[in-house]
Amino acid sequence: MELLKERIRKDGVIKEGNVLKVDSFLNHQMDIKLLNEIGKEFKRLFAGEKIDKILTIEASGIGIAAIVAQYFDVPVVFAKKSESINLDGEMLTAPITSFTHKKEYQVIVAKRFLHAGENILVIDDFMANGCAAEGLCKIIQSAGANIKGIGIVIEKGFQDGGKMLREKGLRVESLAIVESMDAENQTIVFRDDT
Amino acid sequence: MELLKERIRKDGVIKEGNVLKVDSFLNHQMDIKLLNEIGKEFKRLFAGEKIDKILTIEASGIGIAAIVAQYFDVPVVFAKKSESINLDGEMLTAPITSFTHKKEYQVIVAKRFLHAGENILVIDDFMANGCAAEGLCKIIQSAGANIKGIGIVIEKGFQDGGKMLREKGLRVESLAIVESMDAENQTIVFRDDT
Repeated sequence: MELLKERIRKDGVIKEGNVLKVDSFLNHQMDIKLLNEIGKEFKRLFAGEKIDKILTIEASGIGIAAIVAQYFDVPVVFAKKSESINLDGEMLTAPITSFTHKKEYQVIVAKRFLHAGENILVIDDFMANGCAAEGLCKIIQSAGANIKGIGIVIEKGFQDGGKMLREKGLRVESLAIVESMDAENQTIVFRDDT
Repeated sequence: MELLKERIRKDGVIKEGNVLKVDSFLNHQMDIKLLNEIGKEFKRLFAGEKIDKILTIEASGIGIAAIVAQYFDVPVVFAKKSESINLDGEMLTAPITSFTHKKEYQVIVAKRFLHAGENILVIDDFMANGCAAEGLCKIIQSAGANIKGIGIVIEKGFQDGGKMLREKGLRVESLAIVESMDAENQTIVFRDDT
């Protein structure tokens, strides 16, 4: 998605340790116009799929998913993160490790919001090692629902998440895939549009 | 807002301890169509105000604020919650106590996303003791920005938040004000529309 790549080049800040900060337009501060363009693009990419619900994860996935959902005319469920599990039998959970925060979390979704046979689109802002998306997929599968695809705004193509999930046969659509980036020169190389 | 009150009556679940669960349409699972109606209503209420930016707080405020922002054509900044403070000088912070989680948090916003003179509308899903909204207002003031109003989806009118903030001269607009509720009979009384 050219508009997104341009914006990342213009306003993204590359930090040591392969950290890409896009908090001036994607998370923390959100450019709602850009999010609408992102919504249109996901709709174009997943136009052939029947989608019943969008699943994302707090916190930075929520705003994106809410805007994207307008183009699919479906509700959004956002998974919660918790360092502790309260296994009361009414929750679907999966463990994940956050790349950004170097922490273990449980991803939690109330059972009553994911049903067997429902067609789910996963939406998130970033994919690095793919743990968050994988956790969401495990939750969808444990509900007996169908993973129709994973829509990611920015994928770090030099980390394993996208490869791992695509090799499982999942459809991953990333609007910008970062091939490499250089904190010293503030330069970024995107994978060619496919 | 009649549509919202009807929805709360229909799908809200009242729990002991004055807890109102609206997680099937407002948080956890979000009815995006309802959120759009909420956006239109806040725009109607604050039509006379110049708004430059919407400020909310993670996690459940984010989806609502993102949809509402479309009607004001402004970006959204969401404050983060943290139990620890990293005072690196680039952050605006204020302490809050969560009614739901009985915890102390720091609310955090990067300084570069709130500027002196900007006109800010605060949006959040719930108001009980008003701590979250008050924390956001403190952050706005410490940035030298203007609090143009506080838009709340559901206010618990039997708790002090709304009164406290209105007495400070702040404009608080709540789309549904719960006057009382009864867990045993699952009945809810709203304050008359004003």
